[in-house]
Amino acid sequence: MALKNLEEIARGAKAASLILAGVPTESKNKALVAMADALEAHSAEIIKANQQDLEFARRENLPGPLVARLAVDEEKVRGMARGIRSVAALPDPVGQHQLAMELDEGLTLTRVSCPIGVIGAIFESRPDAVPQIASLCLKSGNAVILKGGAEAQNSNRILVEKLREAIGTVEGVPQDAVQLIETREEVSEMLKQDRFINLVVPRGSNAFVRYVQDNTRIPVLGHSEGICHVFLDADSDPAKAVKIALDSKLQYPAACNAMETLLIHSSTAANVLPDLCAGFRDKGVEVVGCVRTCSLVPDLKRAEEGEWDSEYNDLKLSIRLVDSLEEAIEHINRHGSGHTDTIVTENAASAERFMNEVDSSSVMWNASTRFADGFRFGLGAEIGISTNKTHARGPVGLEGLVIYKYKVKGGGQTVGEYSGAGGKAFTHRKLPTPE
Amino acid sequence: MALKNLEEIARGAKAASLILAGVPTESKNKALVAMADALEAHSAEIIKANQQDLEFARRENLPGPLVARLAVDEEKVRGMARGIRSVAALPDPVGQHQLAMELDEGLTLTRVSCPIGVIGAIFESRPDAVPQIASLCLKSGNAVILKGGAEAQNSNRILVEKLREAIGTVEGVPQDAVQLIETREEVSEMLKQDRFINLVVPRGSNAFVRYVQDNTRIPVLGHSEGICHVFLDADSDPAKAVKIALDSKLQYPAACNAMETLLIHSSTAANVLPDLCAGFRDKGVEVVGCVRTCSLVPDLKRAEEGEWDSEYNDLKLSIRLVDSLEEAIEHINRHGSGHTDTIVTENAASAERFMNEVDSSSVMWNASTRFADGFRFGLGAEIGISTNKTHARGPVGLEGLVIYKYKVKGGGQTVGEYSGAGGKAFTHRKLPTPE
Repeated sequence: MALKNLEEIARGAKAASLILAGVPTESKNKALVAMADALEAHSAEIIKANQQDLEFARRENLPGPLVARLAVDEEKVRGMARGIRSVAALPDPVGQHQLAMELDEGLTLTRVSCPIGVIGAIFESRPDAVPQIASLCLKSGNAVILKGGAEAQNSNRILVEKLREAIGTVEGVPQDAVQLIETREEVSEMLKQDRFINLVVPRGSNAFVRYVQDNTRIPVLGHSEGICHVFLDADSDPAKAVKIALDSKLQYPAACNAMETLLIHSSTAANVLPDLCAGFRDKGVEVVGCVRTCSLVPDLKRAEEGEWDSEYNDLKLSIRLVDSLEEAIEHINRHGSGHTDTIVTENAASAERFMNEVDSSSVMWNASTRFADGFRFGLGAEIGISTNKTHARGPVGLEGLVIYKYKVKGGGQTVGEYSGAGGKAFTHRKLPTPE
Repeated sequence: MALKNLEEIARGAKAASLILAGVPTESKNKALVAMADALEAHSAEIIKANQQDLEFARRENLPGPLVARLAVDEEKVRGMARGIRSVAALPDPVGQHQLAMELDEGLTLTRVSCPIGVIGAIFESRPDAVPQIASLCLKSGNAVILKGGAEAQNSNRILVEKLREAIGTVEGVPQDAVQLIETREEVSEMLKQDRFINLVVPRGSNAFVRYVQDNTRIPVLGHSEGICHVFLDADSDPAKAVKIALDSKLQYPAACNAMETLLIHSSTAANVLPDLCAGFRDKGVEVVGCVRTCSLVPDLKRAEEGEWDSEYNDLKLSIRLVDSLEEAIEHINRHGSGHTDTIVTENAASAERFMNEVDSSSVMWNASTRFADGFRFGLGAEIGISTNKTHARGPVGLEGLVIYKYKVKGGGQTVGEYSGAGGKAFTHRKLPTPE
């Protein structure tokens, strides 16, 4: 297949984004509903294309879980359509007044949310990511260039084709709001288009996110690893402690918000370790521990150096004993990935301190790490979980896909009038923000 | 001078930032007041160190305007102290509740603003930037690594020394909140410290900002060029048009928010060009024009190719005639730098369309481009004007130096309880945000 001209694609996306920024909510929602309808109407074609990907995956002996995530059936297509319709039902994040101020009589300032522009989104095998990301970007007025996994190529191609056809039926909404690229070479070309692309959203391994950061001057909204911790404080309730630790590891071990390391205050270790280790053993979790953990649970394997920095994403867990809240916080800030960390305690002061000092996007008190998720947080559909410290952090929904602009309305004012001795003074009076 | 070990400096900044994140507003303000007092108390020493820089500048025949910006006298030191005290008087941007939601009975989510962490700030000759940036970072709970211009080396060194001494007098505020590096080699080492530094703020030329973007995986808050436009619409009031155009160019031509290109609707050109050209000629502005402008003003020089993409920052201006509002918007989105653009018109619909479709951080209607500034916007002191499309855009004050974290408080809940058939449902009920 011939390489697409990425400059042309990016330029087209930029042009589409400038139009999209002014498209009224109603038209965007109409396009979204048309997109959902189109997927359902072409369900058979989509499933047929997906069969080709599945055959390829089986021929290439791709791992079972990957093949499972790749598969699309009628119910999956209906789920995609439902997802798009739920995005249509969300409030429009564009055009929100964030601030209004009188600078002087007859001179006002407002700050209004607006789209970012062009998003480059790179993700892996699940074809459901195509309608999900496309709908979030369209609703927020952004044009998107999608790059899915090579193993989902046929599925992604037909999904994008049907989405673009649907967009084309709604007047005023540019078809280039959604475009697809397919090869690694195209990704590397895309990363050079900083004149046209405003944000790159890579979903994948930590190494991949770093590769993207190293090869572009476009801002990157990173979704990298999750080394999440649960800390069982000296004042923790043993029943809650065991329940939360088991859920954080076992509810969905492959998720980025699953626990990888369990920290236990040495004073409570003897109370909880037997139940915990039995619980994990029952579910086939391989547990490794620090020296002191191993001395309490004799059949445990010793944790190796580097274990505290590992994201297993699997039925494996490391346990370390600490002697204080401070030591737990320090361990997390040193070895964690700034994703999600929980303290189990009945001591409110310790909980507050933990939540303030642990430098992670989600910090929790007496709740499972697995709650860190856009849907569970009630934020609507999410484009991913960001480990950035700027722009958007934690579960990122529509709000993370907009920025703002300042609007000044005057009656001919010049800065000269406000300068020097005898110059006019600013009033800087806050005004109510318009709805 | 020996190179500092940048990893050590960055690690120290990170450690300081984790402490700073929990320092109460009162202590931060106490440190700020101590910083202001220290500069005033050591005014003579600071001026003496500045003399060395000025002598060097004269010996090296540095340009006059640069030497002028470099000079520090007693009034300048008092100005620095006043600036720091005004930052102390601003509300603390940390700990603001942005969102509160009940996820279920006994399970709540809040989103609270928090510092970004460690900021790397790179700027040029004005020594006033040292107390300004240091105070904004400290107030927002961030540790900062400063790199000023080599020509201000002695001034910057004593300023940072006095600021750090002052910080050291306030219990609980870590001295490494403010550190200084001095060489280009140290900057290039700093850009590698993405484990410890969370945001780089370069102030300088477009080429320099691009150099930074090309050499780091740390997010960059770019402050690059300002190619700002004024568009005189067909429905513009000629008196306002002339007044705003002159102010936008002349009030401070070296500023990034000064006008570089004047776009005039062809139907109004004959009304305004004579007065405008006379006004600019009076002030010594070199004007270049498109073919049609030159045919109306015979003694004008023709604009060369590339003129529309030039930031003069000087007494030079390019004028182009356009035949429609659309053409003006298109010109600005193609040639502008997304900084600040103004429409002069009496037509509200045209003004709205211009402000919505021009993709710049500040868009204005009947007001001078020179208003785009943190102080004039009433946002408090600014760290710079961002041309980014993510995180913070336009004039960036304290608000651009914070991010947020999600806090979940529960009573032992697991995600397992909310999963599958018969699982509990989320309530997702908005709560009032605590003060």
